[in-house]
Amino acid sequence: MEKKELLYEGKAKKIWSTEDANLVISEFKDDLTAFNGEKKSSEAGKGALNNKISTELFKLLADNKIPTHFVEMLDDNHMLHKKADVILIEVIVRNIATGSLSRNLGIEDGKVLPFTLVEFDYKNDDLGDPKLNDQHALILGLVDYQDELDKLRRMARQVNDVLKPYFATKGLNLVDFKLEFGKDADGNIILIDEISPDNCRFWDAETGEKMDKDRFRQGLGGLKVAYEEVLNRILNK
Amino acid sequence: MEKKELLYEGKAKKIWSTEDANLVISEFKDDLTAFNGEKKSSEAGKGALNNKISTELFKLLADNKIPTHFVEMLDDNHMLHKKADVILIEVIVRNIATGSLSRNLGIEDGKVLPFTLVEFDYKNDDLGDPKLNDQHALILGLVDYQDELDKLRRMARQVNDVLKPYFATKGLNLVDFKLEFGKDADGNIILIDEISPDNCRFWDAETGEKMDKDRFRQGLGGLKVAYEEVLNRILNK
Repeated sequence: MEKKELLYEGKAKKIWSTEDANLVISEFKDDLTAFNGEKKSSEAGKGALNNKISTELFKLLADNKIPTHFVEMLDDNHMLHKKADVILIEVIVRNIATGSLSRNLGIEDGKVLPFTLVEFDYKNDDLGDPKLNDQHALILGLVDYQDELDKLRRMARQVNDVLKPYFATKGLNLVDFKLEFGKDADGNIILIDEISPDNCRFWDAETGEKMDKDRFRQGLGGLKVAYEEVLNRILNK
Repeated sequence: MEKKELLYEGKAKKIWSTEDANLVISEFKDDLTAFNGEKKSSEAGKGALNNKISTELFKLLADNKIPTHFVEMLDDNHMLHKKADVILIEVIVRNIATGSLSRNLGIEDGKVLPFTLVEFDYKNDDLGDPKLNDQHALILGLVDYQDELDKLRRMARQVNDVLKPYFATKGLNLVDFKLEFGKDADGNIILIDEISPDNCRFWDAETGEKMDKDRFRQGLGGLKVAYEEVLNRILNK
């Protein structure tokens, strides 16, 4: 399967059409952005690491009956996946308070939450991805029915129920992560985008060391080493 | 009933104890604040107008079986009411998009919403009253049970179901308003605080003129005249 037309270029990926109208190719870029695009950089090899990590995690989720857009990894930087109509809601799943949650609501950084929190943000860079309640999402027409919001929340919790214990066996605490969903050609809601240290927070279970994009956000350095370590733990290397 | 000890001074009211442990007195101040206290002023007579308007509206709600903290108006600036443990959630009810909703979510100012929106904000000045979803409110311990959040939403809608048609008969569009709730000595959730042009938006149904605190926020002048007009329409003067 080969790339044809560039359909879309985002902050971390390019999306290409293919000869199959239902399939597209994501090209994982080495670009890094944070704080709604205000901080920018690039790290050679980052895109390939995210592609490989996402590939493994999408396979794991498929094995656990969670529908995703993943079809196959084509090469280091390219993933073939189903085309989907993106639902413009970023679904945030949090097991431990940190980052914007701690800042916005005054919850101590590192506090284990009494239950897994699922949040909806409006995927809209111009507005700075504001927080939504269910009624906002319906008023904005981001989904058609309350049932779909309930389904997003349920699927997000299912993903967490698979990934959190999985990463525990790899010596990583899954602190929080962002998921995106879309509707496939049949109208089914499926998990899309990527699952990688760009949109997950991983803390080493022993040392607490940050193994994710917070190394870039916070200027800690060693980003690629951390991403490689995450991949190696997934691959049991 | 007389004022004894000052229990609390807020931006718009002082709360005094009385000889009855279950009753307190609110003293309505003439102070005006906006933008989380950044803009400040004072308007002689404003407190008395809000006291009188709130008194009429609390009576109307009681007639409609909605429990409130109201007992009686004592004089121009003083209201006797039940003591309540404040629930630290500001419940915002919106019929028409304007203000922060329009700015934050990019919804056109003045757009009639497809259904009445109820929002929860964390009543916390230091944090700037951030938006909450239900899970945030539970994690912060602002209420004990999901049922209580559902009840706040239901009561807020009931208040709107009484006030919106009531103000329509007065030639005023009830655009949005903020409610506060508390628990009385028996643990029942009751409506507290005030209902006035300080925390409601009223637009004249004919001219669209703003008859509320937006006159202060937006520096339009004529605040007291507008509040007096709201009171006069309530009193059918």
